[in-house]
Amino acid sequence: MSGTEARKGERGLGKHRTEALSDGVFSIAMTLLVLDLKVPLLSPAEAPSRLADSLQDLAPKFAAYALSFLILGICWVGHHNMFHHIKRVDRPALWLNNLFLFAVSMVPFSTALLGEYFRVRTSVMVYGANMLAVGLVMVVIWAYATRGRRLVDSHLTEELVQLQMFRLGRGPLMSLLALVLAIWSSWASLSVFVVFLLSFLRPGRVDRQWRQTDHP
Amino acid sequence: MSGTEARKGERGLGKHRTEALSDGVFSIAMTLLVLDLKVPLLSPAEAPSRLADSLQDLAPKFAAYALSFLILGICWVGHHNMFHHIKRVDRPALWLNNLFLFAVSMVPFSTALLGEYFRVRTSVMVYGANMLAVGLVMVVIWAYATRGRRLVDSHLTEELVQLQMFRLGRGPLMSLLALVLAIWSSWASLSVFVVFLLSFLRPGRVDRQWRQTDHP
Amino acid sequence: MSGTEARKGERGLGKHRTEALSDGVFSIAMTLLVLDLKVPLLSPAEAPSRLADSLQDLAPKFAAYALSFLILGICWVGHHNMFHHIKRVDRPALWLNNLFLFAVSMVPFSTALLGEYFRVRTSVMVYGANMLAVGLVMVVIWAYATRGRRLVDSHLTEELVQLQMFRLGRGPLMSLLALVLAIWSSWASLSVFVVFLLSFLRPGRVDRQWRQTDHP
Amino acid sequence: MSGTEARKGERGLGKHRTEALSDGVFSIAMTLLVLDLKVPLLSPAEAPSRLADSLQDLAPKFAAYALSFLILGICWVGHHNMFHHIKRVDRPALWLNNLFLFAVSMVPFSTALLGEYFRVRTSVMVYGANMLAVGLVMVVIWAYATRGRRLVDSHLTEELVQLQMFRLGRGPLMSLLALVLAIWSSWASLSVFVVFLLSFLRPGRVDRQWRQTDHP
Repeated sequence: MSGTEARKGERGLGKHRTEALSDGVFSIAMTLLVLDLKVPLLSPAEAPSRLADSLQDLAPKFAAYALSFLILGICWVGHHNMFHHIKRVDRPALWLNNLFLFAVSMVPFSTALLGEYFRVRTSVMVYGANMLAVGLVMVVIWAYATRGRRLVDSHLTEELVQLQMFRLGRGPLMSLLALVLAIWSSWASLSVFVVFLLSFLRPGRVDRQWRQTDHP
Repeated sequence: MSGTEARKGERGLGKHRTEALSDGVFSIAMTLLVLDLKVPLLSPAEAPSRLADSLQDLAPKFAAYALSFLILGICWVGHHNMFHHIKRVDRPALWLNNLFLFAVSMVPFSTALLGEYFRVRTSVMVYGANMLAVGLVMVVIWAYATRGRRLVDSHLTEELVQLQMFRLGRGPLMSLLALVLAIWSSWASLSVFVVFLLSFLRPGRVDRQWRQTDHP
Repeated sequence: MSGTEARKGERGLGKHRTEALSDGVFSIAMTLLVLDLKVPLLSPAEAPSRLADSLQDLAPKFAAYALSFLILGICWVGHHNMFHHIKRVDRPALWLNNLFLFAVSMVPFSTALLGEYFRVRTSVMVYGANMLAVGLVMVVIWAYATRGRRLVDSHLTEELVQLQMFRLGRGPLMSLLALVLAIWSSWASLSVFVVFLLSFLRPGRVDRQWRQTDHP
Repeated sequence: MSGTEARKGERGLGKHRTEALSDGVFSIAMTLLVLDLKVPLLSPAEAPSRLADSLQDLAPKFAAYALSFLILGICWVGHHNMFHHIKRVDRPALWLNNLFLFAVSMVPFSTALLGEYFRVRTSVMVYGANMLAVGLVMVVIWAYATRGRRLVDSHLTEELVQLQMFRLGRGPLMSLLALVLAIWSSWASLSVFVVFLLSFLRPGRVDRQWRQTDHP
């Protein structure tokens, strides 16, 4: 770890512990989501006949949990990808990353809110705003790290920087759209996130580009 | 880490952070299980005489917690073993792993459900379905990674790939059996998991095979 | 890890797992803070009109959560920085670090207390005392590690050691000030922490010094 | 990691992920302890005058939390020390470690029980039994790993193996003593753990021995 980093002889702190803290916050935030699924309380007499129905009532909470888990999964992949290129961190980068983790740590709350009040505009907007914050800070981190190749490899092509920015930028753009749509319709707003999820499933140009650039 | 991976000059992202996220989700899911054991509430007067009895009432929850902890332990060993062979990850592999972690993160819920309603068919089936999902995604990850030696060492023998698949496949098969048995009897269903646990205790052919292959 | 450390051939255990445990406790303590934000309970009929107001009632808890998350972020950066210089650990260092993590693990409690009773002197003082403990132990770790260059590089300049101590020392000094001010005014006390946060945002002399010393 | 381990060309899986899972379970179990400290519920009118008293009522829970945090800290240091010598893991070792982590993951429950009913014999005995289980499994791991130098360096002296065993063995012996004493007196039982804590503070013969053996 420190050996590898020392060998590079670059300025700035190594990125290893930043990744460790981030992986920690991500894995905890993702796993805490399940705490919002509460086991239904039924008497022993009524449990056999009514448990299945009670579990169905949890469907909105389950959907909110699955949605957030998978969106956080996307963000983690994005963060992973970004830090593959970032070679070191400095104080502003640590701070931006802490802000990012703060937004990530709020997701269990906004998810619980959405699971409870998925038909209420306020909660859909809070959810969209949280996701917007997560995505925006990620874009800012990438912009900060690549400006003048501050924290990335100096040989990184402008094309790769911009492709990555384009891909990262889709997140906050979709969240902004979802936030605005929530004024008219909760369903329209939430469907934006589902489309967003699906759009990230297939490999994009960044992946192909990255393979060519990094491993000639 | 990144140094080691870079030296190999292989395609794909390094696997280190995927392992870190997975270890995080596993350790949190395993430790959250204990939150379902609630300290009994007794008045100071009745506590000395009644605490032991109240703790005995927790037996089903304790059994469910122990069962899930040990099954997750098996899955973690399997994941560990699998990623010993997997040398790099790509986007579909990250997604499959996220799905896997999603199923793992649900275990505290299905365990709490089982601990509360272990005699009710619905909860035993939810538990079986959750374990089936965990096991199935693991099999899919191994199939994806080894198809055309996509993410594993190109020298990996077909025999090892199939032995590993055979061993991994036992998990979802047992879960499927438990799921079907739950229709008739909760006890029969749960005993499948206990047998499953015991069957994993002794070293299997995969371990021996792996030693010979990897370290000639 | 162990390879790198072995190569150095120094006395004492490697620092890797100490960092891993610390990153774990930090990421959990930081993420658990959000559990204090409880989703308001409203009937389906009143939710659309009253949810926004109910969320505004969470403002003090949200502020306490943000404050603690960012202060813990500072402490983590400080710990990161400190362990950049610390090359190995011995038993007293492990114990001091465990004490430090104990104080860190209490922050979710003192934050929940502050969020609930931010106008009450007692809770502001408990919060200040907790932060004082976190900061003091950090200063003691640095003093222990650098005395006779016990656990740090023997070439570390006295100037860097003192600059780092000066920077680390600001934390407990500010906490002590906040603790004393809380006797007269909760607001004055809390504003000390906000000033403290802002003062850590810009790079300090330590960062510049460290760059020059470490990477000539 | 894998590079370092591969270079050694030893049998068995690398120990890195076992350490990562263990560090995860330890850090979570240690941090979850604080969840048992609940913020007292007081009306805004009575809070200023009664909060300090209410917090004092938390003293037994705080003491139990501090005791368990520091005992888990000892166990983590012991585990760290033990895995410093263990160079690889096999399936039985992974299973023993999982059993160990299971006992560790129960500590938040037995601590909450102790904090609530510290005067009741049953809860003191449950606490002692839990700590006995933690300590016993650790001794078994060390015995398994060193038998025929199975998982440790073949050059490890018999003296070091026995010194380490002696030191590790003190934990379960003290817990057994505490468990037996609990039959007569809760206070006598709990004071054993305090003595146990204090006895681990100063460096022992193992540390000195280890320094001489490992770094000649």
